[in-house]
Amino acid sequence: MALNAGPQEVLESKTDVLIIGAGPAGLMAAWWMARCDINVRIIDKRGTKVINGHADGLRARTEEILDSMGHGLQEKVTREGYIFESLKTWIPDEKGGIFRNSVDKLMQDHINDLPSPFLNVTITQGRIERFLVDAIGELSHWKLDVERGVTADSLVYDPNLESDHGAYPITVTLRTLSDDEANPKPANGAFGGRDVLAKSNLPPDEWNHGDGRRQKSGTLEVLKARYLIGSDGAHSWLRDQLDYRTEGSRTDSIWGVMDIVPITDFPDIRYPCFIKGTQGTLMLVPRERNMTRVYVPFSEQSSGDRFNRASITLEQIVSKAKKFFAPYKLDFTVCEWWSVYQVSQRVAERSQHPGNRIFLTGDAVHMHSPKVGLGMNTSIQDGFNLGWKVALAVAGIVRDENALLATYEGERLPVAQKLVAFDRTLFIDNGNLDPKEFQKRHTEFREFSDGRKLMYAQSILVSKQTSTQSVATGLIVGESFKHARVLGHANSQLYWTTKLFESDSRFRIVLMAGDVSVPHQMERVKRFCERLEAENEDESGRKTSLLYTRYRYPFTVSSDTQDVCSPILQHPAISYLHQRCLTSMVSLLAIHSTVDASESISPFEFPAALRGPFDPSYHGWDFSRIFVDAPVHYDRYCDGRAYTSIWGEAARSFFLPDRKLTLDYGALNFLFCLISHYSLNGVLKSNNL
Amino acid sequence: MALNAGPQEVLESKTDVLIIGAGPAGLMAAWWMARCDINVRIIDKRGTKVINGHADGLRARTEEILDSMGHGLQEKVTREGYIFESLKTWIPDEKGGIFRNSVDKLMQDHINDLPSPFLNVTITQGRIERFLVDAIGELSHWKLDVERGVTADSLVYDPNLESDHGAYPITVTLRTLSDDEANPKPANGAFGGRDVLAKSNLPPDEWNHGDGRRQKSGTLEVLKARYLIGSDGAHSWLRDQLDYRTEGSRTDSIWGVMDIVPITDFPDIRYPCFIKGTQGTLMLVPRERNMTRVYVPFSEQSSGDRFNRASITLEQIVSKAKKFFAPYKLDFTVCEWWSVYQVSQRVAERSQHPGNRIFLTGDAVHMHSPKVGLGMNTSIQDGFNLGWKVALAVAGIVRDENALLATYEGERLPVAQKLVAFDRTLFIDNGNLDPKEFQKRHTEFREFSDGRKLMYAQSILVSKQTSTQSVATGLIVGESFKHARVLGHANSQLYWTTKLFESDSRFRIVLMAGDVSVPHQMERVKRFCERLEAENEDESGRKTSLLYTRYRYPFTVSSDTQDVCSPILQHPAISYLHQRCLTSMVSLLAIHSTVDASESISPFEFPAALRGPFDPSYHGWDFSRIFVDAPVHYDRYCDGRAYTSIWGEAARSFFLPDRKLTLDYGALNFLFCLISHYSLNGVLKSNNL
Repeated sequence: MALNAGPQEVLESKTDVLIIGAGPAGLMAAWWMARCDINVRIIDKRGTKVINGHADGLRARTEEILDSMGHGLQEKVTREGYIFESLKTWIPDEKGGIFRNSVDKLMQDHINDLPSPFLNVTITQGRIERFLVDAIGELSHWKLDVERGVTADSLVYDPNLESDHGAYPITVTLRTLSDDEANPKPANGAFGGRDVLAKSNLPPDEWNHGDGRRQKSGTLEVLKARYLIGSDGAHSWLRDQLDYRTEGSRTDSIWGVMDIVPITDFPDIRYPCFIKGTQGTLMLVPRERNMTRVYVPFSEQSSGDRFNRASITLEQIVSKAKKFFAPYKLDFTVCEWWSVYQVSQRVAERSQHPGNRIFLTGDAVHMHSPKVGLGMNTSIQDGFNLGWKVALAVAGIVRDENALLATYEGERLPVAQKLVAFDRTLFIDNGNLDPKEFQKRHTEFREFSDGRKLMYAQSILVSKQTSTQSVATGLIVGESFKHARVLGHANSQLYWTTKLFESDSRFRIVLMAGDVSVPHQMERVKRFCERLEAENEDESGRKTSLLYTRYRYPFTVSSDTQDVCSPILQHPAISYLHQRCLTSMVSLLAIHSTVDASESISPFEFPAALRGPFDPSYHGWDFSRIFVDAPVHYDRYCDGRAYTSIWGEAARSFFLPDRKLTLDYGALNFLFCLISHYSLNGVLKSNNL
Repeated sequence: MALNAGPQEVLESKTDVLIIGAGPAGLMAAWWMARCDINVRIIDKRGTKVINGHADGLRARTEEILDSMGHGLQEKVTREGYIFESLKTWIPDEKGGIFRNSVDKLMQDHINDLPSPFLNVTITQGRIERFLVDAIGELSHWKLDVERGVTADSLVYDPNLESDHGAYPITVTLRTLSDDEANPKPANGAFGGRDVLAKSNLPPDEWNHGDGRRQKSGTLEVLKARYLIGSDGAHSWLRDQLDYRTEGSRTDSIWGVMDIVPITDFPDIRYPCFIKGTQGTLMLVPRERNMTRVYVPFSEQSSGDRFNRASITLEQIVSKAKKFFAPYKLDFTVCEWWSVYQVSQRVAERSQHPGNRIFLTGDAVHMHSPKVGLGMNTSIQDGFNLGWKVALAVAGIVRDENALLATYEGERLPVAQKLVAFDRTLFIDNGNLDPKEFQKRHTEFREFSDGRKLMYAQSILVSKQTSTQSVATGLIVGESFKHARVLGHANSQLYWTTKLFESDSRFRIVLMAGDVSVPHQMERVKRFCERLEAENEDESGRKTSLLYTRYRYPFTVSSDTQDVCSPILQHPAISYLHQRCLTSMVSLLAIHSTVDASESISPFEFPAALRGPFDPSYHGWDFSRIFVDAPVHYDRYCDGRAYTSIWGEAARSFFLPDRKLTLDYGALNFLFCLISHYSLNGVLKSNNL
């Protein structure tokens, strides 16, 4: 309707959620909206997505999240990514050359007991964005796309409306940019601008996507929104609108960075390396497609030079890099991308407006040296953390939206603060920290930087008092689930538990059932399930069962996006998903430890709650929710040692939630899908039919 | 130009290769043509590809081939496929019921020593076709697509032209079918016709593809071709044109088969099962997306009924199946596909015309019971085996096209014959063979059915006399390479060797370098490489080196399909592949066994042949061709046991090709990519500049 809108014409529209900025954080939040069929718009002022350069490290923990989202996201990362496993340090010798002084195996302490199914890899941010854009397209049947070349001009917020759940307190004026505004010439004659993005330079899966531009240049649109997410980067416009300061400082550490296909006789060119020189430490990060990222230090003190950042050219970076490599040669023809940056170590004072309607994520909250390899990971996790909470709030199934949404800042801002603090311990002395000391500090922060020790605080979601942690000692309340490879009891399929914790917005009860061949233990499984299935009166006097009817799955499906579940609308002869309807926000699964149970124990000997509800018209029983921690001779990762070495041996004979919990309504602990062990305690409205 | 051609207008055109039939065999052959940029047409008389039903088993060996082809083909199979690992047998009890009598673990003898990186899986043929069509699209930049709804009406062959390499001895008249002809109503009211293929019934990746129809119904086209491949199924039109008989017979074994989403209380419904009853044995094969395939026996003798195949209805199949399941219930709402077939056990008398211009592949050659789970696998391997040979012949780089092409029938027809013989030993007595006996015969044929003992005969490609097999005892000349997980010496990446044997039409020398930390051993590596690099006069008096210049890689790249290699045409700033130019048909790689060699031995201590040729303008040295059989603590499959337990311990101190070979021109043995150990001895024309 608006294709021919003149510049003076102003469009008006509404959306439940507006996301500004389509980098990894914004796309993750948008993915959740697509997953839950929430009305959303996502804009980005740039005319194209990132194609090359920028962030390039993915941690195993982030890959676990991607794996839980489906779409083959993680499979794509594994196929294209470059394993990042060891770090070699070169130092000057006495004859003016360099020699390899040490090799640090970054996973040396995890002999046969890796903390994740996945390995840390390097892969360009452009590919991550590609995979996420495609996943959003699949979910939305290609209806939701990033609106590119669109900027936000103004924000008006009406605090009087913020307590009205259905109201639109946010008004943003959007403006469609001209081609020149959306695709500015790269600074400094840098490569990587739109001019090189010819079809022949791009992989086929980067071709067929329009740039999402819908309006004529100059078109204004007044958009009202219920929620607003700013993922608009280090120079965040939204952060400025909210007038949130950033704490910290810009360092005097300046770096030249380039992505090249090196032509060299340096033997470790395909390994991550530090090369220590008289003017600081150069860093190499090999990447997919034979590229290597080279970080070259330019700090003023160490070089003795006086310059401003904008004046540094590619030639200067190359010239400086060559000195580090000498006597080895460094040349290249291909430079996909290069840039110069000055390290800022800053964190926003807030990542959330007190009214719980406006949020900041990603680089808008945390700015730091890129060399910790955590920026994109933290941004992805920000967007994931916030996305499902906003989706549940929009759906209107949350008892207390403010309490739920406040956990975003409560959980993620401390992470941003720790991240910047971590960066400060590593990048002091202009990056000239001794590599051994660097490695030592890296090790100290490892559990945090691996995403395994985030220490989410007590909240509506994280219930630390209800467990003494005496049973499943390896599964810490407030931290992520530790994943293992398990066997399907009734189907012999193999699963990483990442796939069991599918990101479908439901809460999951994981029943650690132990050895169910012991009659006493199976009895306890049955009693536990009976209480989940039992119908009791809730506060409104309605009889509902906690497992099936108390918390209804709210995300309805429009007539032509049937993939969540609508067998009735599909031809009975063919349904590509054959996916069971999601009817409850609560999902139950069990992992027991009885070897050869598939031969000795029928799935029908387990309580019906573990295979129900029975769907007489379409799916029958569900044979995919009971799993075994047992060794499988044809898979070396499914070794039957998850209870013993990961979750805690004592869990074998008890349950999570642990035995001290009463099973009264409202006191039952739940484990939420991925980010953390969350409690359902009081989060959802009951029986919202 | 021909969109409006009237029925009386006859188009005339030429192609190097015409493929009739776009099932798995035809698509594999077409993939090779796309890979090698060979001019090809592929037609299929049906209006759409297979979506559901039909073949559904993939063997690990076939998956190895898919993995070598790239495109994420194997990753897609692993993601969607259903692991097929054990077989449970149920037999009648004395009270009119059934009970589980035995469980056969199909990989029980492979404790921690699987013969393949992959597991046998079930997945519908429609998905395999989808993956192959997409791979062909990627390679051809979406220019090569199956022409659907097109049939071949007549074949004229001119034997006078067959010895002229560049001539077109084949003339085929193509006719574009009407929609009704291309999409006939399914027989018997069966599901699965075009009427159910609404968008909402299909996964998104089945949507955006046109059906490839280009001409008006009735359009005739006289197409001249140099080579013709018939992959047109059990009722092959091309086989009839060649007047080749099929040997064997139709059995009186009739089966009803259906793909359903079962609603049942049968506890093993998600396991492959035999259920033995008084009227034969029912077979269950669980599949992706909660489907189960059910094979129901209908043979005349056992039932005492008299019927013809065409009269059997879905209701009859269901009713009969229910009796096998009693007292368990079997119901369903979704039946994706069903069919009735009478088992034929036939093999074509020839799979190749003596002039070596016309070939038959897949079901056109071998017809048998589907329950061996080998039909689609054999067809895929047929198409793969034939495809590269025809591509090399078209390219004009083969010394003796007839000798090369004759190896197709020489290798694959005996496989077809063995396959049908195997089927006869299993499906005697109308499929009522005792399950234990069935399992026993299955075991006897396992190496053959797993694709590990194909016994390809001596030929221009397979040189059995030149090796005594005394060194690499596990690598048998004429059989497939045995794959292992190895570490990149200079890049710390992990590879299944399937990825090293990339299907790019080149011949590979695999240097089993053993312990290169022993000086004597490294000396031998150097001497070997020197001979490969040395320039000698070939028969035409030109000086060429065997490794680099003697056998030129012939597949040129058109200006807008630059992905094979054309850095010059790409913008220097960005090249999505950064792939090294393929200049030689010969590729060298080494796998040594020195633990921690990446720290102790620089890649520059190896001969330049293992990292060359040096590309001064674009890629520099190649750091990706030396591998290590060493244990890696962060990957349980890379265990450093490949020499010891797979290839043969003695190979550690010798080379493949073994030391008894002289390295004179023409006597050097080569290992070809995947199907088999092939020799390059005399295959290629030298120095074809």
